[in-house]
Amino acid sequence: MRNVRIVLVEPSHPGNIGGAARAMKNMGLNQLWLVNPKRYPDPQADWRAAGALDVLDTTHVVADVASAIAGCHWVVGTSTRSRRIPWPTASPKQIAQQIVSQPAQSNIAILFGREDNGLTNEELQRCHYHLQIPAAAQYPSLNLAMAVQVVCYEIYQASLKDDPVPAWDRKMATAEQLEGMLDHLQQVLIEIDFLDVDNPGKLMTRLRRLFVRQQLDDTEIQILRGIFKHFGIAGKTIGSESNPPPQSPPPP
Amino acid sequence: MRNVRIVLVEPSHPGNIGGAARAMKNMGLNQLWLVNPKRYPDPQADWRAAGALDVLDTTHVVADVASAIAGCHWVVGTSTRSRRIPWPTASPKQIAQQIVSQPAQSNIAILFGREDNGLTNEELQRCHYHLQIPAAAQYPSLNLAMAVQVVCYEIYQASLKDDPVPAWDRKMATAEQLEGMLDHLQQVLIEIDFLDVDNPGKLMTRLRRLFVRQQLDDTEIQILRGIFKHFGIAGKTIGSESNPPPQSPPPP
Repeated sequence: MRNVRIVLVEPSHPGNIGGAARAMKNMGLNQLWLVNPKRYPDPQADWRAAGALDVLDTTHVVADVASAIAGCHWVVGTSTRSRRIPWPTASPKQIAQQIVSQPAQSNIAILFGREDNGLTNEELQRCHYHLQIPAAAQYPSLNLAMAVQVVCYEIYQASLKDDPVPAWDRKMATAEQLEGMLDHLQQVLIEIDFLDVDNPGKLMTRLRRLFVRQQLDDTEIQILRGIFKHFGIAGKTIGSESNPPPQSPPPP
Repeated sequence: MRNVRIVLVEPSHPGNIGGAARAMKNMGLNQLWLVNPKRYPDPQADWRAAGALDVLDTTHVVADVASAIAGCHWVVGTSTRSRRIPWPTASPKQIAQQIVSQPAQSNIAILFGREDNGLTNEELQRCHYHLQIPAAAQYPSLNLAMAVQVVCYEIYQASLKDDPVPAWDRKMATAEQLEGMLDHLQQVLIEIDFLDVDNPGKLMTRLRRLFVRQQLDDTEIQILRGIFKHFGIAGKTIGSESNPPPQSPPPP
């Protein structure tokens, strides 16, 4: 994703520059361009960048938007809701999908506007697409660095070929393993006189529902069966105590 | 989405508390809980909260995680990659989808750990699910408030019933309108002697590809046809100049 430029247009607060740099590096991006920043370099930018000082070190500072987007094939401008001239507009997720499907040699720029006023109409009209972050109507204005985070996050997610969710570390139990475990449980419950075979009610259905709802892995099945086995042994002992075998009659 | 609590566990920097409050309000959430914050209240929190001071005003400050998650039916803990005991783990998008499909009366808590150390293993083991934000291996550690932003963003996106992309303001052109416009264009190009009927080459194919690739709306079709009409009139004039009608022979 080296061909995506994040362009901050006239940012006022150096903290946002540092925050944007960190957000970019967290999401695998490193090309930060600043158009006429108010305060930069600044210790506040370095502090907020934390482990992304290398992104700040290679930042391009330029005087106007035209310089920041020179050589770019696809330019996206972040925008708030209502503009008089409608423009092709998409969500961060849709923009991210378009970015990752661009030809590898395409250079892409994403423009973020001033903290107070955003991008001017003239700047927005240089863009092929506008990007809106869906937000609550009551307070839709995201902090600048937060907006960079959301957009970079979506670009990174779109770039992941595999499902980002880590796989479970154990094999999931098969249907047979699950049934075997439930049979074993039922057997134990009978042995310990918890389940009345003649009047079972809905007990096993409820237990089945409980264990089916969780997707158990094979280790968990083994652990449960180990517990049942011990319960069963204990159960037999208890059973033999509560129902002592018929003793030989007392001696006359 | 009033039933989702964002819980920051022992945050060090008040700026992150304010940033989290703003991120929450931007995404329609307002229940912020702080477990044993290092510095709070603090002017830095207020400054970063910007238009979300109301979220700070109703923030709950408690002494431990148990108090923060009391009454919650589903507890999610944000976590970095490798934990020794694997836990059900999902991406922000998947967690968000699970949250919006919870029963309306469910109370949900999402725990975010300390800036430096995250959540302890004991805290993570109180959680039904762990949440991992996919991030670049080179620097996967997001700023705390940024992590809150990403998670709240996904919750808000999942809560939107309709496609968040704003609809185009005009009706899209029909296939007939598009063909009519292309016919008109071809006619004009012939009239102005730009298209040679006997040797057309690939000109119309290239123009067709250009206009088909854009999804034109009906106003744009009208504008183009208006332009073609004027071109055609001008073309006839040009044509009549370059090919003047046979004049009557000069008088003898």
